[in-house]
Amino acid sequence: MTGKLYGIGVGPGDPELLTLKALRLLKQSHVVAYPAAKKRKSNALTIVEHHLTDAQVRLPMIYPFTIEKPLPDLYETALSDFYDGMAAEIGGHLDQDRDVAVLCEGDPFFFGSFMYLFDRLSPHYPTEVVPGVNSVVACAAVLGAPLVYRYQTLTVMGGVLGEDELRRRLQAADAAAIMKLGSNFAKVKRVLTELGLADRALYIERATMAEQKVLPFAEVDETKVPYFAMVLLPGKKWASG
Amino acid sequence: MTGKLYGIGVGPGDPELLTLKALRLLKQSHVVAYPAAKKRKSNALTIVEHHLTDAQVRLPMIYPFTIEKPLPDLYETALSDFYDGMAAEIGGHLDQDRDVAVLCEGDPFFFGSFMYLFDRLSPHYPTEVVPGVNSVVACAAVLGAPLVYRYQTLTVMGGVLGEDELRRRLQAADAAAIMKLGSNFAKVKRVLTELGLADRALYIERATMAEQKVLPFAEVDETKVPYFAMVLLPGKKWASG
Repeated sequence: MTGKLYGIGVGPGDPELLTLKALRLLKQSHVVAYPAAKKRKSNALTIVEHHLTDAQVRLPMIYPFTIEKPLPDLYETALSDFYDGMAAEIGGHLDQDRDVAVLCEGDPFFFGSFMYLFDRLSPHYPTEVVPGVNSVVACAAVLGAPLVYRYQTLTVMGGVLGEDELRRRLQAADAAAIMKLGSNFAKVKRVLTELGLADRALYIERATMAEQKVLPFAEVDETKVPYFAMVLLPGKKWASG
Repeated sequence: MTGKLYGIGVGPGDPELLTLKALRLLKQSHVVAYPAAKKRKSNALTIVEHHLTDAQVRLPMIYPFTIEKPLPDLYETALSDFYDGMAAEIGGHLDQDRDVAVLCEGDPFFFGSFMYLFDRLSPHYPTEVVPGVNSVVACAAVLGAPLVYRYQTLTVMGGVLGEDELRRRLQAADAAAIMKLGSNFAKVKRVLTELGLADRALYIERATMAEQKVLPFAEVDETKVPYFAMVLLPGKKWASG
């Protein structure tokens, strides 16, 4: 007998955007693991903390670094070691028949890091993934911006991409979302401006969180863009719709 | 004084994938509008029906046709007339200070039709959009298929696209989701096979609904593919992750 691993999407930030299923499984899990940066409160934990009891083991997963820029190959080993270590620690709980809920901001399989635990643990333990409200649809909802009309295609990418790839992807897109901006904002703005797309770009920080901020794209201070910031390029309205 | 319009994402099918916020707003809305096909039970209504009371007005929005194939221009007028009519009916309730919740399968702004009501009504009435769990992340969760690794880009499209556009988009994609297959399946399969991508394709019908079905892509009977079927092409695993 082993415990069960749950990858639980806790939504974009508003605690009310948790699903009924996530809430039920969270309450019954023995161990709650969550991503956290050094010395900072975990966003994922903040979303659900009021539902947890003291009897539940809390397992912070402190990332060795943030990933706003492509990492030199050297760092890949460190990242891989980190996931190996976390998987072993979670596996230890599962081996003792404790259910473990891994909290995932947004959705577990949508541009998150849960997949690296999933790939290590799901071959060995019963695993269930609970989808959540991802940040792209949350940003669109807050901005009142329908993403795609009719036969349009949506392209979702990270701000980390190189300038050439950004240019190529954005040029081909009907509608796009560029996530995880941080220090990548200046590059993204340069490409959008060059492509004549800046007028259509919408900017939002920390959608649905308490610190949510919406700014006109042209007025964003590129030195102050957080990691949880996004640019949306909604598809052109369908006139006859 | 007018009522407030809510576009409410009710998630992909499993009634437990409703958010706490959607549930709260649904319960307090005077009118609940939902998309429905002629003579068929509405999926969106099925998801939330057990939360509603008899005191709430139910407003079915019976679509004049389903949209699995591009429509001749002639039909666009009919579709536009339909949305005009529904917007007027909903507006009538809002004018009488009744809050109206429009149920949206998945998420309201993610490949749905709520946007056509939103564009007509939000300039005139207070409007709030409640994001929901969309079908792409739901399918990935059920299939145990992480969508995107590391610096990969996700492309989401409808099966309705023409063969050339499908080929172009799929060729350029790191990871892709092709939604709303129905009678478009044969065409999608042809393109994926031609591009050598069929081996990576995962197929699922009605993810998280009671009638959910997962089939090996090669074994799908193309004459029996429902509208709510999806093909996922997850991104290639990141070896060092």
